Amino acid sequence: MLNIAIIGTGLIGGSMALDLRKHPKVKKIIGVDNNQEHLYRAKQLGIIDDSLPLKQAIAESNLIVLATPVDTSIRLLPEILAIVDKQIVFDVGSTKENIIKCIDNYPRRGRFVASHPMAGTEYSGPDAALNNLFRNKSVMICDADGSDDDALEKVKEIYGFLGMNIVYMDPKPHDLHAAYVSHISHISSFALSLTVLEKEKIEKNILDMASGGFDSTVRLAKSSPAMWTPIFMQNSGNIVDVLNSYISVLQKFKNVILEHDSSKIFEMIHQSNEIRKVLDKFQQKAEKAEMTE
Amino acid sequence: MLNIAIIGTGLIGGSMALDLRKHPKVKKIIGVDNNQEHLYRAKQLGIIDDSLPLKQAIAESNLIVLATPVDTSIRLLPEILAIVDKQIVFDVGSTKENIIKCIDNYPRRGRFVASHPMAGTEYSGPDAALNNLFRNKSVMICDADGSDDDALEKVKEIYGFLGMNIVYMDPKPHDLHAAYVSHISHISSFALSLTVLEKEKIEKNILDMASGGFDSTVRLAKSSPAMWTPIFMQNSGNIVDVLNSYISVLQKFKNVILEHDSSKIFEMIHQSNEIRKVLDKFQQKAEKAEMTE
Repeated sequence: MLNIAIIGTGLIGGSMALDLRKHPKVKKIIGVDNNQEHLYRAKQLGIIDDSLPLKQAIAESNLIVLATPVDTSIRLLPEILAIVDKQIVFDVGSTKENIIKCIDNYPRRGRFVASHPMAGTEYSGPDAALNNLFRNKSVMICDADGSDDDALEKVKEIYGFLGMNIVYMDPKPHDLHAAYVSHISHISSFALSLTVLEKEKIEKNILDMASGGFDSTVRLAKSSPAMWTPIFMQNSGNIVDVLNSYISVLQKFKNVILEHDSSKIFEMIHQSNEIRKVLDKFQQKAEKAEMTE
Repeated sequence: MLNIAIIGTGLIGGSMALDLRKHPKVKKIIGVDNNQEHLYRAKQLGIIDDSLPLKQAIAESNLIVLATPVDTSIRLLPEILAIVDKQIVFDVGSTKENIIKCIDNYPRRGRFVASHPMAGTEYSGPDAALNNLFRNKSVMICDADGSDDDALEKVKEIYGFLGMNIVYMDPKPHDLHAAYVSHISHISSFALSLTVLEKEKIEKNILDMASGGFDSTVRLAKSSPAMWTPIFMQNSGNIVDVLNSYISVLQKFKNVILEHDSSKIFEMIHQSNEIRKVLDKFQQKAEKAEMTE
């Protein structure tokens, strides 16, 4: 039987708990959180069975899910590995290089599996937790060789149960790709929101002019600063690189518009349309997965 | 009875035809397009009853919908107004200042109503046409004083039939707000796509890492260059202003990340979260409209 400790009872930890509760071997889900209101809500919502302080929760569990903001995870993981025995620990954070580095050469390194499920929403906290959030999406497992065989197998089984497609990746390329594909989308949205809010002091104008396009582009700007600040701090090198590229593409756009060069504007938009192929495959993958359920 | 000429049988013209066909007074919908394949498809899909060259279509219609890219509309409108008699003409373009200027002091200026329905998708052509695309969204009517009373009343009645909420706005502020709320969302998406495509040569990496967040932010990058190039050309002054603001916010983001200033990163994200209020109201408005149907 499995007793699971969920450290961090927010969107990701909470959603995982909701699904893992349906696992035939799961007996008890224990919540750990320094936010007492989150613990209270998580219990009320049936996400956790009980709440305990960190040490006691670890002692009573055989599987530990580290679902805190990435800076907190990096602080907690060495503490956790110092007291685990046969328990298995895995994290779900958006950056992987630093968390793996911080426990390099630790005697119990093998009990840990570094992972990043590519799932989420722009909401946060236990009230944002959703059933089936992970189904048919990908999870990255990094530095799998550093994990003990039994730990890796158990975490793979858990992600399989959640309906995820497992991809192995080294931590360095993981953080680079995450910056390009996930982190930059968020910065682009945060910056768009700030630009519009700065210029459009009259809310009614935004509301009248907003259409589905604006809504979808700026949606991620609702995301939690408590979650995203540490990600930008941990992955700062890659993110600064991608921001430089993004800013230079925008400057090129500005220049061709300033020069009234319609054929170059056309060409840039036409090139950007290439993303259709990727998005269509992404959608096909999701639809195919839904059909085979 | 109404015979309607739809000039431009793409996403917007086609969607409008699909809905107007249900109007009790509409007898016939005539398509005009220099793209013969579009005309053929529009007929096949039941969007138009017939196709005719521009002059003949105008002669046979009492209502003319100008739904071409904005540069084509600016070229065609004076030609159309030169041959209309009692017909009513309205456009649906994303920029309003130049189209109104181009027919200033025209004897038949009054037969024209300048409008911009805030609806669309990232797809184009007759195959992208949708039923009920306009329902519960806003339409901007600009320089209404320049239109004859009967023309304005008829166009208002048509938009009312499509389920749209009418907002009056001067063309100058319209183009400014459109740049801030709609046009910048598209540039932000086009640039994001180009940045990711440039860096991520291996499509599989994007596909594995892409999640719903990436998908929604980059979705608009599928949009048609034939439609968007002329918008950026027509609204270049406002768009360059907003691009300058956007780039400077991104640079500020880059600097606080480079400086590892977590409290400033937090503050910027937290400020950007203010857009929640607008997005929530936008959603409430849509939901409320759906409930009262």
